[in-house]
Amino acid sequence: MTFGAISALACTLLPFVPLGASAQSSVQLYGVVDMGVSSYKGDGAGSRQMVTSGGNQASRLGFRGREDLGDGLVAGFDMESGINADTGTGQLSNTNNQASGNSGGGGLTFNRKSFIYLQSKQWGELRLGRDYTPAFWNTFLFDPFRVGVGASTHVLHGTTVTGFRASNSVGYFSPGCSGPSCPGFFYQGMAAFGENGAGPDRQDGNLYGLRVGYGGTNWNAAAAVTTTRNRIADDYTSMNIAASYLWNGHRFMALAAENRTGNRLAAVGNANRVRYWQLGAEWKVGNDSIPMSFMRLTRNDGASSSSQKYAVGYVHNLSKRTAIYGTYAYVDNRGKLNLPVASGAVNGPIPTAGGNASGFDIGMRHSF
Amino acid sequence: MTFGAISALACTLLPFVPLGASAQSSVQLYGVVDMGVSSYKGDGAGSRQMVTSGGNQASRLGFRGREDLGDGLVAGFDMESGINADTGTGQLSNTNNQASGNSGGGGLTFNRKSFIYLQSKQWGELRLGRDYTPAFWNTFLFDPFRVGVGASTHVLHGTTVTGFRASNSVGYFSPGCSGPSCPGFFYQGMAAFGENGAGPDRQDGNLYGLRVGYGGTNWNAAAAVTTTRNRIADDYTSMNIAASYLWNGHRFMALAAENRTGNRLAAVGNANRVRYWQLGAEWKVGNDSIPMSFMRLTRNDGASSSSQKYAVGYVHNLSKRTAIYGTYAYVDNRGKLNLPVASGAVNGPIPTAGGNASGFDIGMRHSF
Amino acid sequence: MTFGAISALACTLLPFVPLGASAQSSVQLYGVVDMGVSSYKGDGAGSRQMVTSGGNQASRLGFRGREDLGDGLVAGFDMESGINADTGTGQLSNTNNQASGNSGGGGLTFNRKSFIYLQSKQWGELRLGRDYTPAFWNTFLFDPFRVGVGASTHVLHGTTVTGFRASNSVGYFSPGCSGPSCPGFFYQGMAAFGENGAGPDRQDGNLYGLRVGYGGTNWNAAAAVTTTRNRIADDYTSMNIAASYLWNGHRFMALAAENRTGNRLAAVGNANRVRYWQLGAEWKVGNDSIPMSFMRLTRNDGASSSSQKYAVGYVHNLSKRTAIYGTYAYVDNRGKLNLPVASGAVNGPIPTAGGNASGFDIGMRHSF
Repeated sequence: MTFGAISALACTLLPFVPLGASAQSSVQLYGVVDMGVSSYKGDGAGSRQMVTSGGNQASRLGFRGREDLGDGLVAGFDMESGINADTGTGQLSNTNNQASGNSGGGGLTFNRKSFIYLQSKQWGELRLGRDYTPAFWNTFLFDPFRVGVGASTHVLHGTTVTGFRASNSVGYFSPGCSGPSCPGFFYQGMAAFGENGAGPDRQDGNLYGLRVGYGGTNWNAAAAVTTTRNRIADDYTSMNIAASYLWNGHRFMALAAENRTGNRLAAVGNANRVRYWQLGAEWKVGNDSIPMSFMRLTRNDGASSSSQKYAVGYVHNLSKRTAIYGTYAYVDNRGKLNLPVASGAVNGPIPTAGGNASGFDIGMRHSF
Repeated sequence: MTFGAISALACTLLPFVPLGASAQSSVQLYGVVDMGVSSYKGDGAGSRQMVTSGGNQASRLGFRGREDLGDGLVAGFDMESGINADTGTGQLSNTNNQASGNSGGGGLTFNRKSFIYLQSKQWGELRLGRDYTPAFWNTFLFDPFRVGVGASTHVLHGTTVTGFRASNSVGYFSPGCSGPSCPGFFYQGMAAFGENGAGPDRQDGNLYGLRVGYGGTNWNAAAAVTTTRNRIADDYTSMNIAASYLWNGHRFMALAAENRTGNRLAAVGNANRVRYWQLGAEWKVGNDSIPMSFMRLTRNDGASSSSQKYAVGYVHNLSKRTAIYGTYAYVDNRGKLNLPVASGAVNGPIPTAGGNASGFDIGMRHSF
Repeated sequence: MTFGAISALACTLLPFVPLGASAQSSVQLYGVVDMGVSSYKGDGAGSRQMVTSGGNQASRLGFRGREDLGDGLVAGFDMESGINADTGTGQLSNTNNQASGNSGGGGLTFNRKSFIYLQSKQWGELRLGRDYTPAFWNTFLFDPFRVGVGASTHVLHGTTVTGFRASNSVGYFSPGCSGPSCPGFFYQGMAAFGENGAGPDRQDGNLYGLRVGYGGTNWNAAAAVTTTRNRIADDYTSMNIAASYLWNGHRFMALAAENRTGNRLAAVGNANRVRYWQLGAEWKVGNDSIPMSFMRLTRNDGASSSSQKYAVGYVHNLSKRTAIYGTYAYVDNRGKLNLPVASGAVNGPIPTAGGNASGFDIGMRHSF
């Protein structure tokens, strides 16, 4: 491809030169708006009725583009903003992978994704910016609910800054597989910077993660680990292994995971190790779907603490882009544990230790 | 319509499945940029010269889409961000319909609209999210200025969190009429959640509203009431009745309204009831328009307090999308009242009690 | 052009009238995503490794549109949001051209541009809103790096609220030249409001600027001055003169500038005058480019303080829209000066007084 010497400067303001490059704009606007009515309760904490965002898929607005550079090379980007659609507010991002870096103030941010990539058929993909951590993927992909009151595994990362995503990251994906899963053997790695200056906490916010997987015709499996350095709040490590099987269009899945910190457990109180496993299924009924799951969690807090979560839902697809859905979930806490039925942007009341929690979402999802 | 079993999961990241649905993106980007130069003064408070945003129409950027689902069903959404175009900053939204829930920090939010809807020709429309309250509509629609220095009625809601919009709302619109007005008899209702947990303020931020109207060939009329529960700041109720008449392209309108609180009056100081009425007209001159209005307000604060506002403007349309405009307004306060000439995002200096205020906007509006 | 009397109200919600105008939407979405890996160090302050945004061009997302009104008249707007792409956060804008008006909280804002304009072939262009100051343009346009670790001149405005842009501004551009440079003689002026009410600081945040230039076939030259009133933090004045010469596609440039405050110097410590000059070049190698620059700065702080910055880079264009790049820079501080090697959104460690600093960016830029 031949182009003028001035082209390196396209899309910035320059003397003498018209803005050529940006005239050939190529960006895709996409998103999801998902809202519902919910009621959540927790023993000893009463109940809350509310309008919630993201009961079936997280509400979002995104901008993405890609350019074929020839020779099997592709460049592109994705910037995706999480939206609390029930209130029109944005979600916090984080600048340094530490609690001190939470940023956004309720305004829109590209908290969900903000990365640029260079993809090669031969060498794989290099990604820079804010992206999902390797360990997050399994707890999301092998949960039939993923978000909303039915989600069980990934809610455990709730209050951990790097539980879902990391900023300032450098990521690598094996050739032919830049998504979370692909046919055959695939792997991905991530390193992210806390970007502290000199001092004893210099390493805080640094993150390292690895994920390997295999995608077959019906079987799919993956294992991952991600660890974040944090001298102040203690290192946080999340590891898991999961598999799914597709049978007559129905999907069955299983996951085992462990979250560990030096002397505390993010999102689940004062102990240094939580283990959990989950069984899930997505049963198809025509164009509709019945997600269901069971999750059991134990914590080494010396009180035989455990939680069990049961969830079932129904998703009725009005079209490829629009669905209505309902989900019910119940959490049985024992010992010192007090998991609410829903977490994140749609918090449920937190029960007293050992108390139970339950709730439902009834809503509508539209993607564009 | 038939589609594969996997379609329920379109637009989220999934193993094995390409992102099909979001390739058929269908979202409309729209907005208004409106700015002008303004000078406002208030007795005892001097004058301010400034560049203002939204003198003729509020500056905004929005994203909306809709999908025809067949059988008279339509799904869609609208997310609209208010913009202080003079500074590039965003506007606060609110998460719980209480002052404690103001959120945004100057970043962009979808404070103006953030809702999803399901519309049926037979049953009407159901809407979830953040939207205008029923009582707001009349004070907006029957004011020939609506925004800027000339607006008089809706400025009275200025500091009340739910004066214009409510978050966490469930709305209903009668069949065939999802806009603010339609031919024939129409009605709408709204309930919104404060989403507080257990406690004495549990009901705070809950809102209920109703609006009924009739649209004829030349006549148009509507009445509305909206009330917000608030144990801390006292309940806030806004009610009004209005009508307009179209004659040879000119529009004449009248409105009577009352705002009430337990023991205070949002935006107008310490008293529990404000009553006001307004007469307005939009006189057409070719493609141009001359808006004018007179508003009189009284307050039961034991001091014979009243305010009268006079406003006149000129809007010269350069095209269907672009106009230049000028507006002048004068406020005559009596007793303890001290209304500024402009409020909201373009505050004028607040005069001393009983002092007068005046000001003008000269600007340009462009919609896209 | 003839259109109905109701058209003045298009794009706002109205009784009886469908939303006609906004169906003919005409807005362009554009932007840049630019990220890299950087390492910066400063004597006595250690080093930092990080992922940075905007090493070659500032990461941004913008919305712009224009409408031909006939008779040589054009109306349009541009709203552009700066993005810290490495973290997905937005950048602060400012509401009053004073430090007290910083606004955004990490959410997205239209901090880079937020203006509306009316352009006439005969009379020139009038612009309202937030825009670059006249003096900024030269320090940007005549620096071969402009952003990233190699940029030297414009970093001096770093912490000054109006160093780059002003809110609440009224701008004027000479006929035929609304960009930063044009063939022949051109000029631009700006006045911006601090919008304070009565009081001793009433003038604070008021800004005035002027820029004149000449664009020839190979020669290009411009001079500019901008001053901001500030009783509290002292007036800030920035003035400069610059020229560039294009020879066989290579561009050579020179700039001399002075920044002055009453008793302090924004971004460079306690003294009231900084002078600097810069020599730069963009050497073309096929489609690639080698930017290089030398900058020398002195400050009247009674300690013979000076800084010299050396920078060199390489930009390899993969297409008109995508490039990979590397930049190295070194700062030699003397006396009391302690300039870091990079500033703004990608801060480098600040060396001790008289200490040196250095660093590099290796990254990728994609525009859309």
